[in-house]
Amino acid sequence: MGPEPPQVSIDIEPVGRRVQVAVGTTILAAAQSVGVGVAAACGGAGTCGCCRVRIAGGELTAASEEERRLLGEPALAAGLRLACQAGVRTDVRIVIGPESLTATQRLQLEGLGADVSLDPPVVGFEVVLERPALEDLRADATRLLDALAATRPPVEATGRPPIGLAVLTELPAALRAQDWSGRVALHRPRGEVVAIRPPAARLLGLAVDLGTTKLAAYLVDLDTGSTVGRAGAVNPQIGRGEDVMSRIAYANTGPAARAELRAAVVEAVGRLAAELCAAGERDTDAIVDCVVVGNTAMHHLFAGLPVRQLGQAPYVAAVSDPLDLAAGDLGLSLAGGARVYLPPLIAGFVGADHVAMLLATEAAEASSTVLALDIGTNTEISLAHGGRLWSCSTASGPAFEGAHITDGMRAAPGAIERVHYGDGRFSVQTVDERPAVGVCGSGILDAVAEGLRVGIVDARGGLARSHPLVATDNGRPRCVLVGAADTGHHRDIVFTRSDVGEIQLAKGAIRAGTELLLSAAGIESVEVDEIVVAGAFGTYLDLRSAVRVGLLPDLPLERFRQVGNAAGAGARQLLLSRDRRLLAVELAGRAEYLELTTHPEFAEHFVMAMGF
Amino acid sequence: MGPEPPQVSIDIEPVGRRVQVAVGTTILAAAQSVGVGVAAACGGAGTCGCCRVRIAGGELTAASEEERRLLGEPALAAGLRLACQAGVRTDVRIVIGPESLTATQRLQLEGLGADVSLDPPVVGFEVVLERPALEDLRADATRLLDALAATRPPVEATGRPPIGLAVLTELPAALRAQDWSGRVALHRPRGEVVAIRPPAARLLGLAVDLGTTKLAAYLVDLDTGSTVGRAGAVNPQIGRGEDVMSRIAYANTGPAARAELRAAVVEAVGRLAAELCAAGERDTDAIVDCVVVGNTAMHHLFAGLPVRQLGQAPYVAAVSDPLDLAAGDLGLSLAGGARVYLPPLIAGFVGADHVAMLLATEAAEASSTVLALDIGTNTEISLAHGGRLWSCSTASGPAFEGAHITDGMRAAPGAIERVHYGDGRFSVQTVDERPAVGVCGSGILDAVAEGLRVGIVDARGGLARSHPLVATDNGRPRCVLVGAADTGHHRDIVFTRSDVGEIQLAKGAIRAGTELLLSAAGIESVEVDEIVVAGAFGTYLDLRSAVRVGLLPDLPLERFRQVGNAAGAGARQLLLSRDRRLLAVELAGRAEYLELTTHPEFAEHFVMAMGF
Repeated sequence: MGPEPPQVSIDIEPVGRRVQVAVGTTILAAAQSVGVGVAAACGGAGTCGCCRVRIAGGELTAASEEERRLLGEPALAAGLRLACQAGVRTDVRIVIGPESLTATQRLQLEGLGADVSLDPPVVGFEVVLERPALEDLRADATRLLDALAATRPPVEATGRPPIGLAVLTELPAALRAQDWSGRVALHRPRGEVVAIRPPAARLLGLAVDLGTTKLAAYLVDLDTGSTVGRAGAVNPQIGRGEDVMSRIAYANTGPAARAELRAAVVEAVGRLAAELCAAGERDTDAIVDCVVVGNTAMHHLFAGLPVRQLGQAPYVAAVSDPLDLAAGDLGLSLAGGARVYLPPLIAGFVGADHVAMLLATEAAEASSTVLALDIGTNTEISLAHGGRLWSCSTASGPAFEGAHITDGMRAAPGAIERVHYGDGRFSVQTVDERPAVGVCGSGILDAVAEGLRVGIVDARGGLARSHPLVATDNGRPRCVLVGAADTGHHRDIVFTRSDVGEIQLAKGAIRAGTELLLSAAGIESVEVDEIVVAGAFGTYLDLRSAVRVGLLPDLPLERFRQVGNAAGAGARQLLLSRDRRLLAVELAGRAEYLELTTHPEFAEHFVMAMGF
Repeated sequence: MGPEPPQVSIDIEPVGRRVQVAVGTTILAAAQSVGVGVAAACGGAGTCGCCRVRIAGGELTAASEEERRLLGEPALAAGLRLACQAGVRTDVRIVIGPESLTATQRLQLEGLGADVSLDPPVVGFEVVLERPALEDLRADATRLLDALAATRPPVEATGRPPIGLAVLTELPAALRAQDWSGRVALHRPRGEVVAIRPPAARLLGLAVDLGTTKLAAYLVDLDTGSTVGRAGAVNPQIGRGEDVMSRIAYANTGPAARAELRAAVVEAVGRLAAELCAAGERDTDAIVDCVVVGNTAMHHLFAGLPVRQLGQAPYVAAVSDPLDLAAGDLGLSLAGGARVYLPPLIAGFVGADHVAMLLATEAAEASSTVLALDIGTNTEISLAHGGRLWSCSTASGPAFEGAHITDGMRAAPGAIERVHYGDGRFSVQTVDERPAVGVCGSGILDAVAEGLRVGIVDARGGLARSHPLVATDNGRPRCVLVGAADTGHHRDIVFTRSDVGEIQLAKGAIRAGTELLLSAAGIESVEVDEIVVAGAFGTYLDLRSAVRVGLLPDLPLERFRQVGNAAGAGARQLLLSRDRRLLAVELAGRAEYLELTTHPEFAEHFVMAMGF
C-alpha cells in the first residue's frame, strides 16, 4: 500500500462550500461528494460540456483533449474548465456558473418565513470571445452574442437576445479593456443583455421600498441570494407634503412639480445605491437589476406618471400591470442596460408595496384564512379566505406616525415607544433609552390602551378628570405620561382628549375596513387563522394594546405575526425569483378590490369602530 | 499706387469652394465673388445678423461693434462671426450655416417606386373605451388594452402589448381629453403600443437618409403609403470634418465630441421632421415610426455608439444587426413611444444605406447578375450573381463631390454639371442655369471624358500643351472650361493635370473594387446584366463619360440604371413593409464582404484602373 495522497481544499463558489480532497480528484467528484450538484449530462465522460467551471485560484491538471475540443483555447486561457476533467493539484477556488448548477439553492430572507428558490431573472454567463481579425470582421455585438450562444445551455436558448443602446455604447471599450472576455448579465424574462461585466464579476440587485415617509434599500448578491447591504433615508418628497394626498396635490400644480418630485426620489434612491456600493467597495455598474415597490402614488411619481386621476374619484391608476423600465430612462445610474421592475398594483390605494408584502408573507397563498395589514397613513388590508383574496385601503391618518398628537413624534431617539401603568403612574420605554422627548405611534397606542385599562380613558374616549395624573390646561384635560423633571426637555409629556380622538379615528378606519373585508368573505373575525401585521408601526406596536383599543380583532395573541418591512423582503424576493414575479401578477390579478369611500356600510362600521 | 495687398485663400463650407482674395476682404464679399449666396438682408450693413458664419481655422479681423451687439460674446468666443463684418487676415476656412445659405443645394430626393405591398410595421386601431366608474376601477392602461383586444382582429392577437413609459405618461390626459376614444398606434414587430392619437388621426412615418454631406427626410402616410413631404439639409456635422474619417477622428477626441456630433445630426433630423410636419399643418406627435439609414459611421454617430474601432483596422462595427431604438432615447421628439429603426449593415464601410439601396433597387433579389454602386467619398459596390451577393467598399475620395479640384464645388447653383466639347471650345451647363462659379463632380467627369475624346487629355492623364485651350500657369498646364468673361465671378474656370489625377484616383479605386467583385464571382464584366448607379453623383453623371474614363465597365448603355436616392427610397419601403425589414436582415446576413485594404490583388487592379 502506497502513501496516502496529499489532501488539498477546494472552495466552491457561489455556494460557499469548502471540501478537502486528495490531490488529483476531479472537481466534479469533489462537488458531488458534498452534495453540490454540477450539471453533467454525459455522466462525467467529457462529452457534453455542461459542467464548465471557472478557476479563480490555484492549479489544476493540464487540460484534456475533450476540454480543448469543447471549450477551445481562448476559453481555456481565460480559466474555464470542465469539472469532470480537471483534477486539483493545489488548494483551488472554483466558480460554478448558474447554468452549471443543477440544484437551485433555497434561501430565507431575514424576518420572514417565506423562502424562495434562487432563480433570479438576471443571471450571469461567462463568455470568451474570439478576437476580430481581417478574416473575422463580425461586429462586436455579433461576436458577443455568438460567444454567449456557445456558452448558454441549449435549454435556455430563446433566440438571440437583443442588446440595448446603453450596453452597445459601452461594448466596444469594455470588450477591448477586458481582453475579449467578460460576464454577460442576461435578463431572462426579456431575453436581453443588460450588462457586460468583467470576468467573474459578481452581479448585484437593488431592492427598494419607497415609503411615503421613508426609503429602504437593499443590495442583494444575485449569485448567492444573500443581502449584502441595507440602508435607509427619509423620502425627500416629504418637503412637498407629508401624506400621499398632499403630494398628489403638489404634483398636480404642473409638470415641473411632478418632475421635481420624481427627480427628488430618484436621486435619493441613486444615493442609497451609491452608498451601499461604496460600503462594499463595489461600483453601481455592478447593479444589473432593480425592484422598486411603493404605494400607487409613490409608484406613479417614481415612474413620472401623472397622478391627477389618483387624487379624484374614482381614483384610478394610470397603469396597474407590472412595469419593466430602463434604469437609464428613470435617471438611475446602474449597469447600462439595467431594468427596474415595478410589481403590479391592485388599485389606486392598494399598491405594489402591498403586493410585495403579500408575497413575502405568503399571506395570499395559504389555504388558511389570513388577514394582512400594512398600517400607515393609509392602511392597506387584505383578507385571504377559501382561495379568494379581498383588498381595501382605508385612510387611517398620521396618528400612528406620531403626527397630529400633542407631544407626538416619529420613532426617533427619545420617543416613548412603550407605556405601562402601575403603582399609580406611567412608566415608559424610549427609543435608544434616551431621555423622553415625545411619544411615537406605538407609545400613544399603549398610553390609550393603558388609560382604558385603568379607567383614565373612558369608553367614549374622554379623560377621567378625577384621576391624579389628569390636569386641566385652559379647561382641556390632559394626562401626564412623563413629568417635566424626567424628560429630556424639562416639560411634561402628556396626552389629551384630542389625542385619544386621533387614535379613535385611526383605529376606527382600520377596524371598519377589516370588518367590511370579513363581511365580503362572509366570515366572522374568529375564523381568521392568522393576522399578519406589517410595516414599521405594525412591528413595534404592542399587540395587547392594539387589541385592547380595538384596532385589531380580539383573537389569541399566537394568531398574530408581526413581520417588519415585509414589502422590502418581497422586493428582494422579486430580485431573486422569476416565479415570484409570476406570482405577483397572479396575486394582483386575483385580488378583489373593495372601494370603501362609497361603500354603503362603511360609515356605520366606522362610527361603531370608533368607540372602545 | 500702393503695393498689391497679399493674397490669402478662403475655403467656404459646406459648398466646398475655395477662393483667393486680398487680405482684409470680408467673407461676404469673398463668397459673393464666387457666386456663393450668403443671406444678407441688410445688404452687408451689419444690422440684420443674417450672414453668420463659423470660423473653422485661420484668423479674421477683430469683431466689430455690430458683431458684439448682434452675436454677443459667447457666440463670438465660439467662433461665430458676421460675414459682412469679418475680414480675412490669413488663409481661413469658414462654414456657412444652412440658415445663412441663400440657395439650398440640390438634393436627390426622387427615388424609386419599387412596389411594396402596404403592410407597415406600425398600424392604427380605433378604440372606444368604457369610462371608469366606482364599479369599474381598471387602470387606464388596462382599460386601453381591453378596448384594443376587443378591436383588433383576432389574427393579430399576440398577447397584451406592453405600453412604454412615454405613452403611459401621456395616457391619462389623452384619454380624458379625447373622451375615452382614440387611435392606437401598434408597433407589430414589438407588439407594443407606441402612441395613442385622436380618433381617425393619420399615422405618419419619417424616413431619413443620413448622408455624410446631406440629409434627406421623407414624411410618409402610413395609411396610404404615399410620400406627403420631402426635405433636405446639409449634415451639420460637416463643420467637424468633411469626410467619414475626419468625423471619426473628431469623435475620438472624447465623449463630449461624440455627443456633440450626435446632438447636431439628431437636431437636424428633428428640424426636418418639424419642417415637414409644419408644411402639412401636422404635429410631430403624428410621427409614429421612423427609419434612418446611413453609412456605418453616420449610423453609429447617430445612435451615439463609439466609432474608435471603425477608424482602425480591422474596422469592425459595434453592431451590425438592425437596431430598434426609442426615439426619445435618441433625443428625437416624435410620438411618445415611437421607435427608430436602423437597418442592418454589412460591414464597417458598407452601411445600412447600402442595404437600403439594394432593397429599393431589388438588385440583390434579381435572378440576373446585377452590379450596384453607391458612388461617394466612399463607394460601396455589391455584385449579385447566381444567388450570392458580394460587397466591398473603396475609398474613392471627394473628387466627385467637387473637392480637391482646382475650381471644384458641390452641385450648388452655378456649378458646372455638364461639359461638352465642340467647335474648338467647351460649352457647359450649370445648376439652375446660373452664371458658372465652379465645377461639380459630374462636370469635372465630363470635362476629363471630353478632353480624352478630343485629345486634350492623354491616356496617362497629361494635358496637351499644344491645344489652344490649354495655357500654362506657373509652369503648370491648365485647360480653360469657361473664360473669365462668361463666369459669375469674372475669372477663368479651369481644370488642371492634378484635377485629372484626382479623377484617376477616384475612378481607379471604384473600378478596382468592381473588378475584384467580378473576380470573386468568377465572371467577366460582360456577363453583368444590369449596372445600378445610385446616389446624387451617380444620378447626375453622364454614363458615356463614366464609361469613357473607365469609371464604369464598357457595356451597352441600356444595361445601366441611374436610380437617384435609392437609400431614401429603401428607407421609405422599410416604413411601409414588414417584409422589407425581414428582407433587409436576410440580405445583410447573406452579403459576403470583401476587404479591399488587405486584398492581395487590390493594388495591382488599382494601378491598372488608374490609366485611361
